[in-house]
Amino acid sequence: MLSECLRNVRTVMPLVHSITNYVTINDVANAVLACGGSPIMADEPDDAEEVTAICGGLNINIGNLNRQTTEAMRIAGRRSRELGHVRVLDPVAAGASALRTRVCRELQGLVGFDAIRGNVSELKALALGSSTTRGVDASAADAVTDANLDEMVAFAKGYAREVGSIVAITGAIDLVAAADACYVIRNGRAEMGRVTGTGCMLSGVLCAYLIANPTDRLEAAAAAVCLMGLAGEVGWSRMQEGDGNATYRNRIIDALYTIDGTQLDEGARHELR
Amino acid sequence: MLSECLRNVRTVMPLVHSITNYVTINDVANAVLACGGSPIMADEPDDAEEVTAICGGLNINIGNLNRQTTEAMRIAGRRSRELGHVRVLDPVAAGASALRTRVCRELQGLVGFDAIRGNVSELKALALGSSTTRGVDASAADAVTDANLDEMVAFAKGYAREVGSIVAITGAIDLVAAADACYVIRNGRAEMGRVTGTGCMLSGVLCAYLIANPTDRLEAAAAAVCLMGLAGEVGWSRMQEGDGNATYRNRIIDALYTIDGTQLDEGARHELR
Amino acid sequence: MLSECLRNVRTVMPLVHSITNYVTINDVANAVLACGGSPIMADEPDDAEEVTAICGGLNINIGNLNRQTTEAMRIAGRRSRELGHVRVLDPVAAGASALRTRVCRELQGLVGFDAIRGNVSELKALALGSSTTRGVDASAADAVTDANLDEMVAFAKGYAREVGSIVAITGAIDLVAAADACYVIRNGRAEMGRVTGTGCMLSGVLCAYLIANPTDRLEAAAAAVCLMGLAGEVGWSRMQEGDGNATYRNRIIDALYTIDGTQLDEGARHELR
Repeated sequence: MLSECLRNVRTVMPLVHSITNYVTINDVANAVLACGGSPIMADEPDDAEEVTAICGGLNINIGNLNRQTTEAMRIAGRRSRELGHVRVLDPVAAGASALRTRVCRELQGLVGFDAIRGNVSELKALALGSSTTRGVDASAADAVTDANLDEMVAFAKGYAREVGSIVAITGAIDLVAAADACYVIRNGRAEMGRVTGTGCMLSGVLCAYLIANPTDRLEAAAAAVCLMGLAGEVGWSRMQEGDGNATYRNRIIDALYTIDGTQLDEGARHELR
Repeated sequence: MLSECLRNVRTVMPLVHSITNYVTINDVANAVLACGGSPIMADEPDDAEEVTAICGGLNINIGNLNRQTTEAMRIAGRRSRELGHVRVLDPVAAGASALRTRVCRELQGLVGFDAIRGNVSELKALALGSSTTRGVDASAADAVTDANLDEMVAFAKGYAREVGSIVAITGAIDLVAAADACYVIRNGRAEMGRVTGTGCMLSGVLCAYLIANPTDRLEAAAAAVCLMGLAGEVGWSRMQEGDGNATYRNRIIDALYTIDGTQLDEGARHELR
Repeated sequence: MLSECLRNVRTVMPLVHSITNYVTINDVANAVLACGGSPIMADEPDDAEEVTAICGGLNINIGNLNRQTTEAMRIAGRRSRELGHVRVLDPVAAGASALRTRVCRELQGLVGFDAIRGNVSELKALALGSSTTRGVDASAADAVTDANLDEMVAFAKGYAREVGSIVAITGAIDLVAAADACYVIRNGRAEMGRVTGTGCMLSGVLCAYLIANPTDRLEAAAAAVCLMGLAGEVGWSRMQEGDGNATYRNRIIDALYTIDGTQLDEGARHELR
């Protein structure tokens, strides 16, 4: 039950260490708080190793990489792996520069992520070496649709098998895959793409869910993805005449805060393939 | 027609690369999304060159400079110029330190900006070498008023001619000048000064407008400045008892999202001198 | 009268230079603006010294330290001290890593803070060398309660005496202590802990209050702490069905903007020990 995953997060109140971009870092912190976790950010190499040690998981997001934070990702990632903590990668705009793709792959080897969450173009960049010309957004040509769903489910499972991580590909249809099973999730709204950082927020929330739900990580990941999509729906339902993407951002985080287990079970639209 | 400029942005959905300060970076991203563009931020030298190549324009904002981001500004600026992309400079707090003024001037030579947008004290610092003691705000003594309007229009045109850029000086009265023509714009509200980053947001929006409207850049710049001022007015009209500057920030971005071409044409208060 | 402190801030409009973490930097800027000050952020060593010189005070927050910003803290801190400016330290997550505790202590010697504001675990880390395992939150075991109030007041006064700073320990019960007097403040709400950065915002506001109220700094600090707690209460009273921590963040900053002197005097719940 997804609701159990939600309740575990609220009970455990997991500490999530994020090394993340400065564009959406505040929203990630508030999203982690909203879902029931406690965020801390430390991206100086001298600081990151100790900070990660007191946390339950590490959320690495390459949204605006620099040399210092990349080094902190390596050091904290290695330590986090030694400690058996949850490790999540958000490969923002992988494929938009050689550096981003290269750093992701290096970190995949070094850190060994429990889960990787990105849009379909980012995941294709990691898996296939393709490049993107739409920056932080997925290319329309890459989108997961009903027409290519079987193929994309196979891609997600195959990549999950190859890298040994849960693979969460989010977009109009979300896929959350392990090597041999894949949740197909149909929550969320297209307007979420007009708010910066909904993907980044989800990666922080996902890390909290994985920490608090060690026994079934695939279900926990699916719960986090359903929750984020549902938050987009609940948030949208509260929008009023004249509201735009700034208010929508707030409504989405508010919904992460207010949605309870019953709402999540009732609102989640997922099937397992 | 300003409305045409607005519609072009919503059709083209231009990718805007911002190298900008971390104070308002999230608001810049959401403002670019609100007006119809797509934001990406990359300020590591190794990353910025490739990222800028896939975008339509580069928005450089010196709000909190450091050595790494300054180097990224140089590299991305040079590449953006080679590619003939739109380049915008926001000289935040130029005049508040020698470093800020120096970096702006260096970048002006190296990058050759299509447009420079700042408050009057910042533009005077660049043009005249004056210094300011009010930090990120304009000094009251510098303000563009009806009393000094002719003189300030001449200053804006003269500086536009000298540096070969559109010069947008924003404040109670906004000036958007090319070498031989200047829009005088009377949109906006004084309360916008109590929200951090309205200038930064405008610079991002301005970059999107210039990318999507290559044939008349002066009009496109005027459209962006009118839009931002109008967003301040529309946003204010939705304020309720007990609301303050945090809600006003959201209302301004919301208005950037909702204002359509008709509203812009009807609400814009500008004259060409 | 606390209201006098508030009015002085709104009259003086003090410039506050913050070298602060990127998680909450935008909220700090908007909180400083809300209370009547003017924020500027500069954390590059080459920039920070000059920027601090035009300000009335310096707010150092170690929320996400790096080498560059640490060096800027040293340089700006030294200059600010030479100029007799207000200096405030926010030792975020001191005790969570050796680096954080060490940097705070080094800065305490170098900069000589007028005020230090943190949660009880952070202040214990500085005073007693203890470590914390709850990241940016205080450990429950450390909390100031009615049961240990006498002891904690003595601790706050003792540490204030030792380091020559006003010591503000914020939590369910706030203590604002000088060597021989301590305000015990009972404003605020527990839900403020679910919004990232309320402590950071308070440190910025505190700096503004100390700048604008040089004659009675202990009272000024108490006024800032009461104001922040009251903003949490006023903000909460405006929350509606479905609102969560994102809206609460906005409501808190809005309340900093709207609360006037009369409301502050009437709403403040403090006693002097």
